[in-house]
Amino acid sequence: MEQIVSKKNEHVKVWAKLATKKGREVQGTYLLDGWHLVQEAINNKAKMHAIMVTEDQLKMHELEFPEGVPVYLITAEVAKYIGGTVSPQGIFAEITLPTKSLKPSYVHKGAWLLLDGIQDPGNIGTMVRTADAAGFKGVVLGDGSADLYSPKVVRAMQGSQFHIEVLKGNLLEWTQELVSNDLPVYGSQLNPQAKNYQEVNASLDFALIMGNEGQGMAEELAKATTANLYVPINGEAESLNVAVAAGILMFNLKLVL
Amino acid sequence: MEQIVSKKNEHVKVWAKLATKKGREVQGTYLLDGWHLVQEAINNKAKMHAIMVTEDQLKMHELEFPEGVPVYLITAEVAKYIGGTVSPQGIFAEITLPTKSLKPSYVHKGAWLLLDGIQDPGNIGTMVRTADAAGFKGVVLGDGSADLYSPKVVRAMQGSQFHIEVLKGNLLEWTQELVSNDLPVYGSQLNPQAKNYQEVNASLDFALIMGNEGQGMAEELAKATTANLYVPINGEAESLNVAVAAGILMFNLKLVL
Repeated sequence: MEQIVSKKNEHVKVWAKLATKKGREVQGTYLLDGWHLVQEAINNKAKMHAIMVTEDQLKMHELEFPEGVPVYLITAEVAKYIGGTVSPQGIFAEITLPTKSLKPSYVHKGAWLLLDGIQDPGNIGTMVRTADAAGFKGVVLGDGSADLYSPKVVRAMQGSQFHIEVLKGNLLEWTQELVSNDLPVYGSQLNPQAKNYQEVNASLDFALIMGNEGQGMAEELAKATTANLYVPINGEAESLNVAVAAGILMFNLKLVL
Repeated sequence: MEQIVSKKNEHVKVWAKLATKKGREVQGTYLLDGWHLVQEAINNKAKMHAIMVTEDQLKMHELEFPEGVPVYLITAEVAKYIGGTVSPQGIFAEITLPTKSLKPSYVHKGAWLLLDGIQDPGNIGTMVRTADAAGFKGVVLGDGSADLYSPKVVRAMQGSQFHIEVLKGNLLEWTQELVSNDLPVYGSQLNPQAKNYQEVNASLDFALIMGNEGQGMAEELAKATTANLYVPINGEAESLNVAVAAGILMFNLKLVL
């Protein structure tokens, strides 16, 4: 097992760069921080390039490490540098960046969440986690959304990227193809002229689009949907947080058998 | 109008300290950052000690400033320092820290959200905002929760502290008093043995308790409730984000007339 004590080590430089989009694209990998996520990756047989671990964490979890994956023993100092946080747990894994794509013309079943221009990494990650909890089949990120595998998104996803499909795609194409495959596609709008979500019957196979935090979903998408829904605001708040609104919609629209 | 160009100005030192709990307690005030929040404070007649504004923002909003509140013209540099962010909008207000309390024995009506040991400021603020949007009467923070008026909580509340009651209190006392006043108090647990929230009829007058992100709600509270509810997880996610779960529960439990 290789020991790394310096932040100037070549491996460490690469791992620290995985916090940036460019670093992830150059390496084709991203970082998991903390045992919960590393364990999810192991349990779901994610492609693992390396495990980086402090001595304490090694003792606790070594028996669960998969065979054939290089393990690097790191210091607490190096762990802080890799994780970019003040008090990291001290265990990381470097994972292959998924490149899977899926043509929407082949999608005939399941509940899908489409994210149009979501900017906040925490919101993206929380919505992927909620989609998983609600029994959705997958999440599709449109072009304008923040990057999927940044440290903040990965933390908020809580490993749900290993449970459901998480894809990039052209949302107008997805909307048109799903509608032509007889899957209703529901937009969401902060607009009392839109349809109250409580008027829609729960179903198994449909898509829900959530739009940008400030601007909502793109007009051309809203025109292509089966219907656009809104969550009625009963108090004086102007709006809901997008991840909260997505949670209310997903749990109410998804039929559970 | 006083102009402030230096970060070493005595006022600026005080405002910058409002980012800390101690600073807020010493001054008895907290900070609003951005026109949306300042406007909410003005519209809701919050007690305002000062408005701090860059020249650009002054031109845009001066006509809406309330009479008698001291206005300080600040530089972009000072604005960054006060707000603690890289690109602040350039308008702030210093507001009286609320000290209002309410005895739960007097509470006979309305929907109430009780927060037990919530740690993440974004979660607290988002739940206050969601409670407002769901038509709740107020939110009560128990002892173990993070501070209410930190910059992150204030940002996430989006001004909802001006629309509904936001209080501190002893949650066991609240639970016992509300139950004895015939208001059902629903706990929430990540436990399939608890009651499915969909089995509870929506109502006008009740309380909902949300617990700590990792540990859930305190055992002694769970024992004192009318019933404890859970949101069924249909996929492989282990749990929901607490603010998302709160949104699903609030919007489903609250009857809208």
